Amino acid sequence: MYAHAIHSLTSNVTRTAREVSQDQTSKNARLLIRAGYISQAAAGIYTLMPLAIRVLARIEQIVREEMLSLGAQEFLAPALQARELWETTGRWESIDVLYQLRSRHGQEYGLAATAEEAIVAAFEKNIRSYRDLPAALFQISTKFRDEPRARSGLLRGREFRMKDLYSFHFSEAERDLYYEEVCRAYMRIFARCGIGAGTLRTFASGGVFSKFSDEFQLLHEAGEDTVFVTEDGQTALNKEVADDADALRQLFGSTVPRLREHRAIEIGNTFKLGVRYTDAFGVSVQDSEGARRSVQMCSYGIGTTRVLASIAEVYGDDAGLVWPKALAPYDIHVVVLGGDSQTLEMARQVREVCAHERLSALIDERPEIRAGEKFADADLLGMPLRVVIGGRSSQEGRIEVKRRTEQEVSTISLDQLTGFVAGS
Amino acid sequence: MYAHAIHSLTSNVTRTAREVSQDQTSKNARLLIRAGYISQAAAGIYTLMPLAIRVLARIEQIVREEMLSLGAQEFLAPALQARELWETTGRWESIDVLYQLRSRHGQEYGLAATAEEAIVAAFEKNIRSYRDLPAALFQISTKFRDEPRARSGLLRGREFRMKDLYSFHFSEAERDLYYEEVCRAYMRIFARCGIGAGTLRTFASGGVFSKFSDEFQLLHEAGEDTVFVTEDGQTALNKEVADDADALRQLFGSTVPRLREHRAIEIGNTFKLGVRYTDAFGVSVQDSEGARRSVQMCSYGIGTTRVLASIAEVYGDDAGLVWPKALAPYDIHVVVLGGDSQTLEMARQVREVCAHERLSALIDERPEIRAGEKFADADLLGMPLRVVIGGRSSQEGRIEVKRRTEQEVSTISLDQLTGFVAGS
Repeated sequence: MYAHAIHSLTSNVTRTAREVSQDQTSKNARLLIRAGYISQAAAGIYTLMPLAIRVLARIEQIVREEMLSLGAQEFLAPALQARELWETTGRWESIDVLYQLRSRHGQEYGLAATAEEAIVAAFEKNIRSYRDLPAALFQISTKFRDEPRARSGLLRGREFRMKDLYSFHFSEAERDLYYEEVCRAYMRIFARCGIGAGTLRTFASGGVFSKFSDEFQLLHEAGEDTVFVTEDGQTALNKEVADDADALRQLFGSTVPRLREHRAIEIGNTFKLGVRYTDAFGVSVQDSEGARRSVQMCSYGIGTTRVLASIAEVYGDDAGLVWPKALAPYDIHVVVLGGDSQTLEMARQVREVCAHERLSALIDERPEIRAGEKFADADLLGMPLRVVIGGRSSQEGRIEVKRRTEQEVSTISLDQLTGFVAGS
Repeated sequence: MYAHAIHSLTSNVTRTAREVSQDQTSKNARLLIRAGYISQAAAGIYTLMPLAIRVLARIEQIVREEMLSLGAQEFLAPALQARELWETTGRWESIDVLYQLRSRHGQEYGLAATAEEAIVAAFEKNIRSYRDLPAALFQISTKFRDEPRARSGLLRGREFRMKDLYSFHFSEAERDLYYEEVCRAYMRIFARCGIGAGTLRTFASGGVFSKFSDEFQLLHEAGEDTVFVTEDGQTALNKEVADDADALRQLFGSTVPRLREHRAIEIGNTFKLGVRYTDAFGVSVQDSEGARRSVQMCSYGIGTTRVLASIAEVYGDDAGLVWPKALAPYDIHVVVLGGDSQTLEMARQVREVCAHERLSALIDERPEIRAGEKFADADLLGMPLRVVIGGRSSQEGRIEVKRRTEQEVSTISLDQLTGFVAGS
């Protein structure tokens, strides 16, 4: 969608700041605001600026590809969901973060906090026979939650982007198999986003129909969650499960192992909902003998803006953001120093190579900005590779390259650039 | 994003219907619901099902490409826009279709009906000097309007998708040049979507800062607008302008030519807003002498779900939807008749060709459905080319192809398929 763009760094689209308001107490918001990726619109609500859109588009495309690989198809439920939908399941009253509004003409809506009711209502007529199952549908859309506190930047906003997948099954066995497939896809998504290693599938409490649900917890001090991990790192559980003697017995038998406590960010969750929602809407299918049978349902969420914020938390350092190659808004950040003819010619050639090799580049040719400030901005914006054009190396037809995560500067010829970008 | 997918037509994702509720009085809603592209969630509010998502993704990608080609960059404003923002321009009171809501914690928001206030608030700090201008930013997002009546399906929903572009300029001359560039991009967008020929750039009344704005009106009986067109087809004006003696004099001098009245669908609009919004937020830039200067602003909208609905209105016939090639959810609709070994082998080969040639295909292999019903569904769903596999032609290693817009059926060999899809 955004392949190999070549853009100039202009302050009208991206203006960096040395400092941000003291109200911003979270690292992700501070870095993302300083780097001009986001702008606060209200408490817990942010405008995504062009650089953030480019990262988000890459995250959401990874999520989309993995959902399609599960055979799921994309749909889009409305944000305005009629009060009657929520009342069918009792959630008009029970979801305390549901924004509720009444139109001038008397209609009442809950603003999409999630979409179990909406999807069941939209697709129930498509699910009539056992032959219509399984079915799996997902959307990637804006969600709303009236959070009492909103202090964690994009980690917990009042408005955020989320992928939600829903699956429908004839039998519990078939449901369980699909559920495991989705959990594996989740781990692939987090791995492709560069946060696979720190993410643990974590036992969470279930509900009426299932002893456990699963959370995908990224171990990190910025997280609002607490998880407990066995010493071998193989089993993780959230606080609710750790506090539940019954659940502990079911997981570990009579001897609960030593558990290490960690802070963690919940970047995904998956639920076996059983027949709660499908029964509430009267969805049932005919089995091969013609009898009516309830339909098993699961739901699976990943907050895509939360993933973006998590990466800022995990990789960001004192100098700024650090994007994994797969998510960076641009492959390279080009700093042009000086306006002499060799430098300009070199900049022209770099653009040509980028266009030809389909590398995307953000080029800082701002004439009024000092070299030191340009280097600081390159670190702050966090592209994987910095390229410097100017001075002696330009005269020699060479460029300086430095990875964001390393100190070492190398001087290379232009035809080495693509290999350097590809190199780990 | 959705290139060369090969999907089976399954009723759990797309279930067609012979009839729809009598409440649906508009052709676009009737066809799109019958064909399983959308499902009504509430009055004026629709769930987009997978086939509609595939069309919408193609429309929005065309729009995105044309916006990027104007040098605009993508951002995303929140849907929840604080009351204070709207009050800054007086629109909290004056927009009568603004959904207003109050959170449990006392915050008040207007739901994004448009985003002039939001973008000025988010980007005002990026626009400080004349060197920061021009700037152009767009988003493609869900918008909300509390329409008193919602009877035109996706043509006028309470929740819909819209592209909105905003541009900022130092001088009126520069603004006017950019504005014309955008209008040309609009005509390219409509042409690429297959509705260029019927769309007229139409004089509309301006406002305080400009005598005229422009509407892009697609002449069609389903439209809610009335436009007047000169007999040479060169000049079009909307009703407000036609009723304004002053405006008529400005356009035509003392002799107003004969004007033909048409119904039309407003699929885009563009406004020179002058300094109304920028002044309200105190945005100004320093000119080269250091003096503060007001900033010129324009806004430009295209309703992407409205474009989708317009195409259903314009091209749809008694048998169903008809998609232009550039927007069809799939290149071909494959009807498989019978389950004999030659037919199944042929179906396998068609899948192989589609995968290899990157054609996207929707394959109807439903065993329980009669041939006549499969043909009716193919017409209803509206892919540009229908391919039939089965019977004698399969035994001869051939397939039957028929364009959606023609009656003629041709029998071709598999290696002719790609050429047939490419042919106009």
